[in-house]
Amino acid sequence: MNPNAPKAGDRIDTLSTPLPVIDETVMAGNISRVQSYMDAHGIGFRPHIKTHKIPALAKAQVDAGARGINCQKVTEAEIFADAGFHDILITFNIIGASKLLRLAALNERIDSLKVAADSAVTVAGLSQAFAGRRPLTVLVECDTGGGRCGIQSPEEAHTLARIISDSPGLVFGGLMTFPKANSEADVNLWLKAALALLDADGLPCPIVSYGGTPSLFSAHKVTVATEHRAGTYIYNDRAMMREGHCTQDQCAMHVLATVVSRPTHDRAILDAGSKALTSDLFGFADFGLIVEYPMARIVGLSEEHGNVDLSLCGDIRPQIGERIRIIPNHTCVVSNLFDDMVFHRDGVVTRVENVAARGMVW
Amino acid sequence: MNPNAPKAGDRIDTLSTPLPVIDETVMAGNISRVQSYMDAHGIGFRPHIKTHKIPALAKAQVDAGARGINCQKVTEAEIFADAGFHDILITFNIIGASKLLRLAALNERIDSLKVAADSAVTVAGLSQAFAGRRPLTVLVECDTGGGRCGIQSPEEAHTLARIISDSPGLVFGGLMTFPKANSEADVNLWLKAALALLDADGLPCPIVSYGGTPSLFSAHKVTVATEHRAGTYIYNDRAMMREGHCTQDQCAMHVLATVVSRPTHDRAILDAGSKALTSDLFGFADFGLIVEYPMARIVGLSEEHGNVDLSLCGDIRPQIGERIRIIPNHTCVVSNLFDDMVFHRDGVVTRVENVAARGMVW
Repeated sequence: MNPNAPKAGDRIDTLSTPLPVIDETVMAGNISRVQSYMDAHGIGFRPHIKTHKIPALAKAQVDAGARGINCQKVTEAEIFADAGFHDILITFNIIGASKLLRLAALNERIDSLKVAADSAVTVAGLSQAFAGRRPLTVLVECDTGGGRCGIQSPEEAHTLARIISDSPGLVFGGLMTFPKANSEADVNLWLKAALALLDADGLPCPIVSYGGTPSLFSAHKVTVATEHRAGTYIYNDRAMMREGHCTQDQCAMHVLATVVSRPTHDRAILDAGSKALTSDLFGFADFGLIVEYPMARIVGLSEEHGNVDLSLCGDIRPQIGERIRIIPNHTCVVSNLFDDMVFHRDGVVTRVENVAARGMVW
Repeated sequence: MNPNAPKAGDRIDTLSTPLPVIDETVMAGNISRVQSYMDAHGIGFRPHIKTHKIPALAKAQVDAGARGINCQKVTEAEIFADAGFHDILITFNIIGASKLLRLAALNERIDSLKVAADSAVTVAGLSQAFAGRRPLTVLVECDTGGGRCGIQSPEEAHTLARIISDSPGLVFGGLMTFPKANSEADVNLWLKAALALLDADGLPCPIVSYGGTPSLFSAHKVTVATEHRAGTYIYNDRAMMREGHCTQDQCAMHVLATVVSRPTHDRAILDAGSKALTSDLFGFADFGLIVEYPMARIVGLSEEHGNVDLSLCGDIRPQIGERIRIIPNHTCVVSNLFDDMVFHRDGVVTRVENVAARGMVW
């Protein structure tokens, strides 16, 4: 335990850096804004917990109207089940004896557990683990253009749905996709074709789960979807700003850092490196946006140092010892680096939450 | 606590993936090989603990002949001081009231604590914290071409050394540099010029600390150096292979992963994403080397998925459920993602060590 650990009442400008902090007011606004959009369009909303990994925040999302949560790994789902969540979708092909055993145990203790699968191999493993037990609901993951996991055509999606439906221990639950951004019309056609095949075969398809933060405010264009999954919106980040999903004022996470060296006129060194920001570029050429010096560019990271190019900054440049705030390129990966997350309102710490699902990679 | 946590005696091919594992035999060979090189050239060796963050491994390095250890942050040094290490160099400008208080407390309880500084601002903060207490040894960090922190010229190095020497609570301890690779002759000239100025001013310079893994086997060319610092050599990684510092057989760390999807003939999806490998490219175009399929390329990572291009693989391609081993681009950042590190000999787990200094960013 850190004797200087932040606690409620501390001013964030006195806390040791580097440190991510979350603005409570901005976060609450983000939860409300996105839930209102989903409500206005009659879309079920299923936040992805990977962004925060904190049960108290998932509770705020569900209290605002979300229907359940989205996890990526069994160990994450276990932590949220322990915290009282009963509707969990794991959007991952679960493979391997140990994980399947844990998945089966989890299915006995929450109301509605669902997983995704995109191959007969994954489905066979699930069926073997669940035959004779409480049935598991399985969604067919469809590659509608995202280019990651997923069945490649509506015809194959129907085939796998039929296999699931015929497999002991499994229930076919619907379709799920992690789409390419700005492809709503194509995705809708793809899914409609699959739904027609399922319908012709007499296979009910209660869930069509659409997702992704880049598709957040286009969710209503996928008319066949019954729910949307997204995570990053709760904190927001520089990539979300670029996509037009939030303004800078709607970014709830800042990584506090200190200038520890000014070796040359054009170079500043921060105490925030890849252990605070990660190396995620997300299409940017630099590693985050410095709020106080938006023309400064974090051009290099080593683990504990951020190398900042000040050459475009004009005459006003940061001094040694000065504290700055960074909007990271990608918030979710920052959450995974810290055991605790500090929340504040107007610069005063409100609470410190354990990042309970940090490091849960299984 | 994970009920399926790996334990001694387990076979690594039964452990849940993704998971980094360390080959004990290879690691012991790496420790011995590098220490032998340093001994043969009469160079003091100071391993950087950032690679492993585990006291038991630092003990093996010191037992092999290392003179002490190198940390980057005060919180890391505290953990190693707790574990009994008495010669610690922190190569970082320590700035901020809370960190300085902790540094002063640390200096009271170990024999030899040293820090680096590259500005009068950092030195003034150190002096204020240490005046009237047990003096702190301070090295001048020199930018001999590495382009990160550091004083820019031998003349300025002498000026800062003089300021340190004249500051209450501080002792000038020497010079330190994190060099550019393959620049030994230039670095030697730079440091010699600084040493001449110090000598002319009557300032003894007991330590000249050279460092960096890219410079590892060139350390003897910097004839004025009294010690070398390096970390990665204990595990080795793909970047070390590229630099010619190790063979593939000398890479002790593998990240075990499972193929969870084969959406197309040319695409495989692994359960290892940026939460297992990090996004560090280190100059590569892809995110790690798959031992079993060296022509496969991990072209994309999301947090839990690795996207593998198999188009160069010929006819033999991984199947769903198949386990593979990845040599990461950069080992140190992988260590920082996992609470525990699993060690094995011939595929059987020998021990599981807590990564005690994981996440210590202050």
